[in-house]
Amino acid sequence: MAVFPDLVRDLTEAGRHQDVPDATKWFAKVLQYNVPGGKKNRGLALVFAYRMLAKPEDLTPENIRLAQMLGWCIEMFQAFFLVMDDVMDGSETRRGRPCWYRKNNLGVAAINDGILLESGIYQLLRMHFRDKPYYVDLIELFHDVALKTSMGQSLDLLSCQFGRKPDLEKFSMKRYNTIVKYKTAYYSFQLPVALAMYMAGIRDTEMHRQAKTILLEMGQFFQVQDDYLDCFGDPEVTGKVGTDIEDGKCTWLSVVALQRCTPEQRKIMESCYGSKNPTDVAQVKKLYEDLGLPHTYATYEESSYKIISTHIQQISRGLPHNLFFKFMEKIYRRES
Amino acid sequence: MAVFPDLVRDLTEAGRHQDVPDATKWFAKVLQYNVPGGKKNRGLALVFAYRMLAKPEDLTPENIRLAQMLGWCIEMFQAFFLVMDDVMDGSETRRGRPCWYRKNNLGVAAINDGILLESGIYQLLRMHFRDKPYYVDLIELFHDVALKTSMGQSLDLLSCQFGRKPDLEKFSMKRYNTIVKYKTAYYSFQLPVALAMYMAGIRDTEMHRQAKTILLEMGQFFQVQDDYLDCFGDPEVTGKVGTDIEDGKCTWLSVVALQRCTPEQRKIMESCYGSKNPTDVAQVKKLYEDLGLPHTYATYEESSYKIISTHIQQISRGLPHNLFFKFMEKIYRRES
Repeated sequence: MAVFPDLVRDLTEAGRHQDVPDATKWFAKVLQYNVPGGKKNRGLALVFAYRMLAKPEDLTPENIRLAQMLGWCIEMFQAFFLVMDDVMDGSETRRGRPCWYRKNNLGVAAINDGILLESGIYQLLRMHFRDKPYYVDLIELFHDVALKTSMGQSLDLLSCQFGRKPDLEKFSMKRYNTIVKYKTAYYSFQLPVALAMYMAGIRDTEMHRQAKTILLEMGQFFQVQDDYLDCFGDPEVTGKVGTDIEDGKCTWLSVVALQRCTPEQRKIMESCYGSKNPTDVAQVKKLYEDLGLPHTYATYEESSYKIISTHIQQISRGLPHNLFFKFMEKIYRRES
Repeated sequence: MAVFPDLVRDLTEAGRHQDVPDATKWFAKVLQYNVPGGKKNRGLALVFAYRMLAKPEDLTPENIRLAQMLGWCIEMFQAFFLVMDDVMDGSETRRGRPCWYRKNNLGVAAINDGILLESGIYQLLRMHFRDKPYYVDLIELFHDVALKTSMGQSLDLLSCQFGRKPDLEKFSMKRYNTIVKYKTAYYSFQLPVALAMYMAGIRDTEMHRQAKTILLEMGQFFQVQDDYLDCFGDPEVTGKVGTDIEDGKCTWLSVVALQRCTPEQRKIMESCYGSKNPTDVAQVKKLYEDLGLPHTYATYEESSYKIISTHIQQISRGLPHNLFFKFMEKIYRRES
């Protein structure tokens, strides 16, 4: 992923916008703080998928470089949503550091930096892919996934009533699955592989559909892990302090808890879930433990792994099974 | 502009996203509250420009309808930035009603609705323009203007130090002009005409350059008016209560005041500008009056009008002068 400095140069010194040096300097800061510090799973997934999918004669240094650039575009897409989400959720830390909006007391002005990050994606696509036959496919996919991700965010915000009291009546496994699919699975799993497929010249809709089915299942699995780690993970390892209980989010843990709890235990959920009070938060966590959710989670992880593996083996449309298995390995039993 | 209900239907009932009815219902609310209530200058400007620029045989009902749809895309673009800006500036009212983020105590969750509005633009372009030879031109122009607008917003936020104490040292007419060009002129003036030109089949870069030059001048003129009305306009007529002084914005009034004030008067600016205290705000307003800014503004308006008119007459590349004169008439001596 050594092309990041070139990307910053492309966006800030490319002979355009020379009359606003303060703005381009600021843009460079926004990129540097928010884009490279993560695990880069999504960007790396794209490069990996491209290497597996491209014809051998197409695996030139230029094309690898292009795939890396496109990988960074996904990382910018992720950074765009993280900057915005952290403002909306009032989060404290991200990747082991203060969230961007908390740096230098930036506050809601960070919203504009989110927009800059998103805009940067399309500038890079134009600079590097304009003459490619798949240029419009890339743009349309980013647009489509941006819409889906923000629809998922809407659903998420609606279930916790925009940060006020969460509406536990709405918490069901069906709703949870829909939120996750829209808010996370499309951009984290389908997007990298579909972009790599377009770059490799694969436009067959049935192949895209089959890949999407598996990838959305993996996204689901990944988000359940994320929810588990938000509550039971080690902040030193995850790089963030979880606030799902405080925020009253519709999570896998809360949905399973509501399915299993007695009427008395439900009262605990009703009075404590979505409260910032540490005693309330501890009560919810204790309830999760009393209900045996860590064990349920471990069982879920195992069975999900088996189901997804079976589905991978059933792919019939010539996509390399190994691509998907490698992805599974990456996320299975992760701790951050 | 009667196509608005069709647009809402396109974005919320088009057979896609049927598994998230709560999110599409919410999207419809966001569109209805934020898109149609304004003066629609930008959208109407596009339709007007298209009527003037298209070949007579191309002025079919279908093409007029397409131009109207594209006009609504600009209105959505505007709504996207207004929703975000109102959160960032902590504004109270917009178009005579509470700002969206203040409705139902929505707060920062409104950020996501801004993203939905922006995403909607590209969905509509894809639905209605995908088979047109100018499809990519439209998309790239929206992308480009989105980047420029957010760079202008960065400059704006940097000059008032993200809502903390404004840095009056940075307030110069040059900086003001740059902020305005990026933050307002591109999207309000260049965007509608350039989109109409593409729709009318005009791709000549020199024609686009000439139109841009005049339109950015008009945008400048328009923003100076906006700054004047923010302080001296009638909220009943403008539909919003101005907060530029409170927000410490780099406005035309503040720049001219700083150019003209005595060292004593500058002290007033330094202690009162950017303060929410009504006494401080009144002091700044009194200073503006003492310095004769309403009169200076009237003189500026006259001379600007003449200069722009001359420039319109100098356009040599076959663009109809009347198009630009009609635009001038619309904005000259406006009160809202």
